[in-house]
Amino acid sequence: MEEKTVNIDIRKDLFGANEDAAALNAAKFKEHGIKVFDIMGSVGTGKTQLIEALCDLIADDHKILMLAGDLATRIDADRVSSHGVDTVQINTGTACHLDARMVKVALNEIPLSDYDVMFIENVGNLICPAGYSLGAMKKVVVVSVTEGPYMVRKHPLTIKRADMIVINKIDLAQALEFDVDALVRDVREVDADIPVLKISAKTGEGVRELAKQLGI
Amino acid sequence: MEEKTVNIDIRKDLFGANEDAAALNAAKFKEHGIKVFDIMGSVGTGKTQLIEALCDLIADDHKILMLAGDLATRIDADRVSSHGVDTVQINTGTACHLDARMVKVALNEIPLSDYDVMFIENVGNLICPAGYSLGAMKKVVVVSVTEGPYMVRKHPLTIKRADMIVINKIDLAQALEFDVDALVRDVREVDADIPVLKISAKTGEGVRELAKQLGI
Repeated sequence: MEEKTVNIDIRKDLFGANEDAAALNAAKFKEHGIKVFDIMGSVGTGKTQLIEALCDLIADDHKILMLAGDLATRIDADRVSSHGVDTVQINTGTACHLDARMVKVALNEIPLSDYDVMFIENVGNLICPAGYSLGAMKKVVVVSVTEGPYMVRKHPLTIKRADMIVINKIDLAQALEFDVDALVRDVREVDADIPVLKISAKTGEGVRELAKQLGI
Repeated sequence: MEEKTVNIDIRKDLFGANEDAAALNAAKFKEHGIKVFDIMGSVGTGKTQLIEALCDLIADDHKILMLAGDLATRIDADRVSSHGVDTVQINTGTACHLDARMVKVALNEIPLSDYDVMFIENVGNLICPAGYSLGAMKKVVVVSVTEGPYMVRKHPLTIKRADMIVINKIDLAQALEFDVDALVRDVREVDADIPVLKISAKTGEGVRELAKQLGI
């Protein structure tokens, strides 16, 4: 037998294994007819409030599951539970993002075909979650006007890997003297075609349009 | 020779190697008489503005170096440069934190004994930087009232590994109906003794006290 050397790039291999697991998750979600959205963004960007607003909007005619990722606590899952939505909390300990296998394990005993829609709220972090697909239909990155004007320019890869950008807390833009249109232009510099939605999960502005664009 | 098996925990080994490099950095900083502060916190928490405010306060009698960590751009270094401070920007590409070796390499040709104080602004991320010492005298975690009320409870390890907590943007607390004292109590739950300072880098409130506590 010819001798063979295989060079393994650990980092690449880790990502590869995750992509495989994500593809299996995606196939399972499709089989059970559940629309899954991976909601990413930094700490305090309003991901939970956004999910709460979407749940209130569609709960009458959709059965919803929410999966929350945090290092510790089940604060976010509890908030969404209070809207009558079934929730699963994943506590990652020190891990700075969810990965496809965590999602698989967390959903192990959940009857997915009972649900129409699942929102996965990723760990609050604008960097790491973008590198790990979970098998969701869409990756939605939430940024907000309270994070300063540079977060898009500083995180081009996160924008590139997303399917949709949501700019949240637009109700605070004037008070914080934040230029939302300049932020939209920053997104356009990175990706000319990605949908960008301006919303306020707090006041509800733009939430109906967001649900429409998500196809729910 | 007796056969020997060594089990290597890659993750542990990576952290161990970083701790060794951090200890070497710390020894070098001490040798050159430079006080080094690792400023950590999420995106948009006001780390750069805090460093700018500290620079303005102490620039008359301190020679300052600023080292900025970001995935991309040199926006933060440029902002601090405009205050007459020497700066070095590290672009990490995809890495979600600085590590001790990046700092060592970045400082390779810098005459450290020319400086009294160095501020290292870590990558904007409340999770990953806390796991990697850089050799700084103090690790300062900056949180702000725009990040929602749960960021301390969700990140106990980051708080535990810090030497000081700075609550920034207190000028916005009232408008955002943010309970700063509740946040201080959350910090106290995790660490009863850690110094907690309430400041506004924008208005300057509390910045003099912060400098005093940092010993600069």
